[in-house]
Amino acid sequence: MTTDSISTIPGKSNAFHPISASSLAEIRSIVSESYLLTDETVLREHGHDETEDLVYLPEAVAIPASTEEISAIMKICYRERIPVTVRGGGSGLAGGALPIRGGLIISMKRFDQILFIDERNFQVTTQPGVVTETLQNTLKEKGLFYPPDPSSRGWSFIGGNISTNAGGPKAVKYGVVKDHVLNLQVVLPNGDIIWTGANTLKNSTGYNLTQLLVGSEGTLGIVTQIVLRLQPYPTQNLLMLVPFRSAESACAAVAAIFQAGVTPSGLEFMERNAIDWAVRYVGETPVPINEDDAAHLLIEVDGFHLDSLYADCETITNVLAQYDCGEAFFADDDATKTALWKLRRNVAHAVKKNSIYKEEDTVVPRAELPFLLKKVKDTGARYGFESVCYGHAGDGNLHVNILRGDLSEEAWNVGVTQGVREIFQFVKSVGGTISGEHGIGLVQKQYLDIVFSEVEMELMRAIKGVFDPRGILNPGKVV
Amino acid sequence: MTTDSISTIPGKSNAFHPISASSLAEIRSIVSESYLLTDETVLREHGHDETEDLVYLPEAVAIPASTEEISAIMKICYRERIPVTVRGGGSGLAGGALPIRGGLIISMKRFDQILFIDERNFQVTTQPGVVTETLQNTLKEKGLFYPPDPSSRGWSFIGGNISTNAGGPKAVKYGVVKDHVLNLQVVLPNGDIIWTGANTLKNSTGYNLTQLLVGSEGTLGIVTQIVLRLQPYPTQNLLMLVPFRSAESACAAVAAIFQAGVTPSGLEFMERNAIDWAVRYVGETPVPINEDDAAHLLIEVDGFHLDSLYADCETITNVLAQYDCGEAFFADDDATKTALWKLRRNVAHAVKKNSIYKEEDTVVPRAELPFLLKKVKDTGARYGFESVCYGHAGDGNLHVNILRGDLSEEAWNVGVTQGVREIFQFVKSVGGTISGEHGIGLVQKQYLDIVFSEVEMELMRAIKGVFDPRGILNPGKVV
Repeated sequence: MTTDSISTIPGKSNAFHPISASSLAEIRSIVSESYLLTDETVLREHGHDETEDLVYLPEAVAIPASTEEISAIMKICYRERIPVTVRGGGSGLAGGALPIRGGLIISMKRFDQILFIDERNFQVTTQPGVVTETLQNTLKEKGLFYPPDPSSRGWSFIGGNISTNAGGPKAVKYGVVKDHVLNLQVVLPNGDIIWTGANTLKNSTGYNLTQLLVGSEGTLGIVTQIVLRLQPYPTQNLLMLVPFRSAESACAAVAAIFQAGVTPSGLEFMERNAIDWAVRYVGETPVPINEDDAAHLLIEVDGFHLDSLYADCETITNVLAQYDCGEAFFADDDATKTALWKLRRNVAHAVKKNSIYKEEDTVVPRAELPFLLKKVKDTGARYGFESVCYGHAGDGNLHVNILRGDLSEEAWNVGVTQGVREIFQFVKSVGGTISGEHGIGLVQKQYLDIVFSEVEMELMRAIKGVFDPRGILNPGKVV
Repeated sequence: MTTDSISTIPGKSNAFHPISASSLAEIRSIVSESYLLTDETVLREHGHDETEDLVYLPEAVAIPASTEEISAIMKICYRERIPVTVRGGGSGLAGGALPIRGGLIISMKRFDQILFIDERNFQVTTQPGVVTETLQNTLKEKGLFYPPDPSSRGWSFIGGNISTNAGGPKAVKYGVVKDHVLNLQVVLPNGDIIWTGANTLKNSTGYNLTQLLVGSEGTLGIVTQIVLRLQPYPTQNLLMLVPFRSAESACAAVAAIFQAGVTPSGLEFMERNAIDWAVRYVGETPVPINEDDAAHLLIEVDGFHLDSLYADCETITNVLAQYDCGEAFFADDDATKTALWKLRRNVAHAVKKNSIYKEEDTVVPRAELPFLLKKVKDTGARYGFESVCYGHAGDGNLHVNILRGDLSEEAWNVGVTQGVREIFQFVKSVGGTISGEHGIGLVQKQYLDIVFSEVEMELMRAIKGVFDPRGILNPGKVV
């Protein structure tokens, strides 16, 4: 946190009731004294996530341990119209977990058990408060693979990943979170408990409530159990870092790799300052970064047959040679691979250390990537902001970190907002959208009119009304 | 069709208005004289799909040619409360396209254009009335692959595939229809036109309306344009047919293949009578079926590197050897592969030629398959019905064709229904559900209470109400 100030939502009266002493006592009796917290330090800790420098204080934080406890809490909050915001690992970049209307935070951190690893069926049933990387490592020990791996996986909760439909580098081959969720246990705002689907790979039975909940950012229900599909863990992978003289060439090469018939398991783009900042932040690099390289692609292939992967790499390097690249650096051991991924995973941290920033999560059909990058830079030049661009190029998902630097309050709040709006309008015009994996939360809401018509927005608001007629769950987010 | 009788829904008053002469004239003026049909033969043709022997007559059939025409028609039907049922290729097995409340059929057969093949982005934009196989073959010519391939692909429409969230043999490796749909243009019941998403591989922008529409069986909106993601077409595949002495062993071997780290691109199960009937129906087989074989697995692997596929096949045959199988028959040329797949794809036709039948579409976690098969046979023995079982074993998706044979009216309508209920209760108890890829439509509605609670059903009904407050679109289906 770079500031201590507490944000408020201007021009909105609070239609909700504050938590009365008697409601607090009721909630306390459900979770016990130690798990209902109201002291200033705790409220402040739960008042921010990783989004810019925003802080909103809740009135209380409850830390329940079971579905039944959450159901009981929600019955009280529903009756009393108390706003409730669910919190996972707090790694969100769109403000989805900020309690902007005060009320109660429900922290999921005691839902930290992996309940059942079904090796016969390649499935896992888990609580939502398990850290994603912990889940992945536990599964890997049994030869099982849960691919989605957001950069925050070391501290984000699997439940939070579901809430934003998270992605990560592996999504290009294995899909995003939604492609791996089979079934969810959910507590509705009124305290009712449902399951959204079945523990099956195929399901044509009724409306797809599972997919409606995934990516709904805690606005429709509270996920309390998760069934995920798994795959055999790929035994082999190869990783290379390829420098390019021009960032646009690097982006253009991305689509060509797929057209050559190869689907990498990772295809990441970093423009020059992204990798420079990451190297400085991490303090080391396994390969020197040449002065005249404008961008890099980090390319991974994985599978079970090493010969096939070498053949894939040969295809890839043949393609890349047509895009003015430098010499590819192959990671020839696990330590080097880890070091390369560490650079990529720390870009956002490196940027954060240097400046307050807004992280945009643009996504376009992948061949539009070079044009998007150019649009970002041109727009920045016009509005006077610097940006660091990197991301999941194989998915057409470009993270645009816009630096506050020494921009004035007005340039930051008005100019940058207008610039982002123009970038998003471009994104929409080429078939893309404004968030690929971070979600809308609080800070992207103002841009939804760019991608949705009023009819579409009205449908979403009505769906919200079906699940949450009193609007108590994560109010003021998404719709 | 084996009967000419017209079914009625007992005990339900029709809350809808019949189509008045003036409404008919309005609709006629939209689609032109030649595309609004009311003569008996046409109504009868559009009064059934592939579901048992059910026939329900519509009052008229409109065959519009554009989104705007459909929007204009829906405005009239919404205003006049005329029930509307959308019809694709008519290959449905759950009665989803039956106009059980009369009213208007909208046939999508003039929506037969593939609009744009985006080779740079591996996407296709198509109208919904394109026959699935036509779409697949057109894409294949450009090296592009749209995997979902229901057995009906030679005559079902891609729009119908979306409506039921269809699967097919390739789903085990590549996923079902929902995993390939990026974006849909949809006409809502009131005539409004929306797009559900974006043309991107990742999307965390608002609620997932795309996935809500996929599998909603024409009850929420009318899909008028479809954007699908594609993959490079695998250049290599290997196919083998493996006989087993026991059907349970064959089912048990299925989970073991995945546990050995191989994900086949097809893993189909046929019990003895399924393959026998298919051989008789097709009139030839590339391999003799031994008398003492109780079941077969048809196993395909695909990819880009033949050596890897041979290695996969070796892994598979090593696994299978532990499950009392006979000698695997490898298809060594394209003609033999086609002949083997032809057998598998014609099981349902072969059964249909022999008897009226109910097709159940059970799906369970795949390791539960042997227990499901046993449950089906035990239940059949108790209720006196014969069944032919086959399906997508790799997905745990077992089709159970229950033969009418010479069962009495009561045994067929009451006894079989009770038996199916018991099978579905078993399916639910092991984490499965009642339809994997055919949908609920009309004939499975009566069983929904087995898999959904009243709260879950109420949520779905309320979602239906959001899209279709007057309940005019495909009334009486799913929810």
